[in-house]
Amino acid sequence: MDGLEILPVRGIGDVTAGDDLAELITRAAPWLRDGDVLVVTSKIVSKAEGRLVEVPADGPEREAARAEVLASETRRVVARRGPTAIVQTHHGFVMAAAGIDASNVDKTHLVLLPESPDESARRLRAACAARGVRVGVIVSDTMGRAWRNGLTDVALGAAGIEPFRDHRGEIDPYGNELQLTEMAVIDELAAAGELVKGKCDQVPVAVVRGYPGAGAAETPGAVVLLRDAASDMFSLGTAEAHAEGLRTAATLPQTATDAPADAEAVRRAITTAGLDGSVAVPSPQTLRCTATDTTPAGLMRFGADVHRLRSALAAEGLASAVAYDETGATVAVSAAQ
Amino acid sequence: MDGLEILPVRGIGDVTAGDDLAELITRAAPWLRDGDVLVVTSKIVSKAEGRLVEVPADGPEREAARAEVLASETRRVVARRGPTAIVQTHHGFVMAAAGIDASNVDKTHLVLLPESPDESARRLRAACAARGVRVGVIVSDTMGRAWRNGLTDVALGAAGIEPFRDHRGEIDPYGNELQLTEMAVIDELAAAGELVKGKCDQVPVAVVRGYPGAGAAETPGAVVLLRDAASDMFSLGTAEAHAEGLRTAATLPQTATDAPADAEAVRRAITTAGLDGSVAVPSPQTLRCTATDTTPAGLMRFGADVHRLRSALAAEGLASAVAYDETGATVAVSAAQ
Repeated sequence: MDGLEILPVRGIGDVTAGDDLAELITRAAPWLRDGDVLVVTSKIVSKAEGRLVEVPADGPEREAARAEVLASETRRVVARRGPTAIVQTHHGFVMAAAGIDASNVDKTHLVLLPESPDESARRLRAACAARGVRVGVIVSDTMGRAWRNGLTDVALGAAGIEPFRDHRGEIDPYGNELQLTEMAVIDELAAAGELVKGKCDQVPVAVVRGYPGAGAAETPGAVVLLRDAASDMFSLGTAEAHAEGLRTAATLPQTATDAPADAEAVRRAITTAGLDGSVAVPSPQTLRCTATDTTPAGLMRFGADVHRLRSALAAEGLASAVAYDETGATVAVSAAQ
Repeated sequence: MDGLEILPVRGIGDVTAGDDLAELITRAAPWLRDGDVLVVTSKIVSKAEGRLVEVPADGPEREAARAEVLASETRRVVARRGPTAIVQTHHGFVMAAAGIDASNVDKTHLVLLPESPDESARRLRAACAARGVRVGVIVSDTMGRAWRNGLTDVALGAAGIEPFRDHRGEIDPYGNELQLTEMAVIDELAAAGELVKGKCDQVPVAVVRGYPGAGAAETPGAVVLLRDAASDMFSLGTAEAHAEGLRTAATLPQTATDAPADAEAVRRAITTAGLDGSVAVPSPQTLRCTATDTTPAGLMRFGADVHRLRSALAAEGLASAVAYDETGATVAVSAAQ
């Protein structure tokens, strides 16, 4: 058959700090062959590397210690809802609770992710090679996803296997050039491995046999799968980004430049702020607002309305600067830089 | 071996509207067995079901037609950056371009997703059963993910296979109850299938053999993997949610209630708005702001500052209502409802 096999590795037993994973795995799977891909649960990699933190077994002390560990593993908080914190780890993974795990370990310890899963994968691959078997290695862990219920395993680290299979530039049978089809195959291999692994039943390693090209060469590692926050359209939770928008409105700077503002966007902002009819628009670059109620309270309300308008302009991606005078405000508008 | 096999189904050939997929697949894979899982690329399901739209082969007419098709397949736009639109389809999937595809089809057609991928899976499963083989069926497609580069295949539809494998409530060897480990196994099976399928090479179906429990019973379908927007922390792109926050600031209603406001959050809001020292706080529920510059321009600026404060309060999740008078503003604050 020209397909793949996904094989569980049983009998590895409990892994503790200092254990030689290559020894444990090759002993449990003497049938390993060149070209196999080892999909190794990050938990046992962490345990072998001693990535454990001692915490109280229960009570508020445990919760406090856990919060402290989470903070130390966190580069930035991406989203939070109730007790759930989605954070970006120092490695760059976006995961619930920074991947810190309390399962499959005694109650006085938490397991952290490996310090460098790519390094861990490379070391394990080299140690297997030293034992005479040239494999690819994927260090996998369970992650949640945006938009979809349930969890899947993905690759935290990889060695000896290309992270992507790239279809870009290929031509399909109809002559169309394929686009946007860079497949994250190490994530798919991690998911495939999970199907034969278990959470409780001591199968922390799966072997994928038959995947072309595995084990042969050095490869970039799973780090190339990390999308940096700047290029990610979902770098922050919706509620957090919404709050950021409100905070931006609270701190709007005076920033209009010469960059022309889109007239339609300016119109939409005036409508959003509820100021149709009370804003004169000599050009989309200059809005003149005149105060009609000249009592102190009326002038204050007018100032608030002008700030509403500036917030609505910012929502359209427009910068603004305001100058108040005796009878109203002149708002300079520009495209944002 | 007690693992899984992932087998490609070759020789299916071109699929066109009206084709009987069960016939094509069982003829190409006479080795199919009870308990196998068919992982079928949604593209051939769509083609068999005639889910094609005719469009001009090129030029601006093609782009316009494509935009129109996208709009008709879209329930809501989730995020947009440049030419990339991430939308939620009418089914509920969050996908780039609503899963509309121009590859593996002639240049005058676009392929839409199946109308109901779960129904498609159920029909195909029933048609295979009628041919004497009891299989599970997954209709798969390629999707991008937040936070991670590269694409993976996931399940759009499923029949005869449990969508989740649930570890919740299980006890690990250390006596810890497992939590949050509801695995989306049909997505993992779709990913595993993709590893032996090809974009161009006419392998639109993979068979997963050996997955326990497949094919036996009716199951809920992939629809249970759809997380509704209300419970999704990433229901909107970061930029879109940020703009929504600015728009909220432009339209802040008067909404304070009796619900007590958190004093620390109120303090933070005053600091964010840059109004430390100029806001008196008799209680976190009542903020008194006094205008110091009583010229018309000064009163307008004061009004804008009060609106900054209200925006900052909203960013902290606090509702507010403002009353202006001769000498300043009284802002009532409450927890949001």
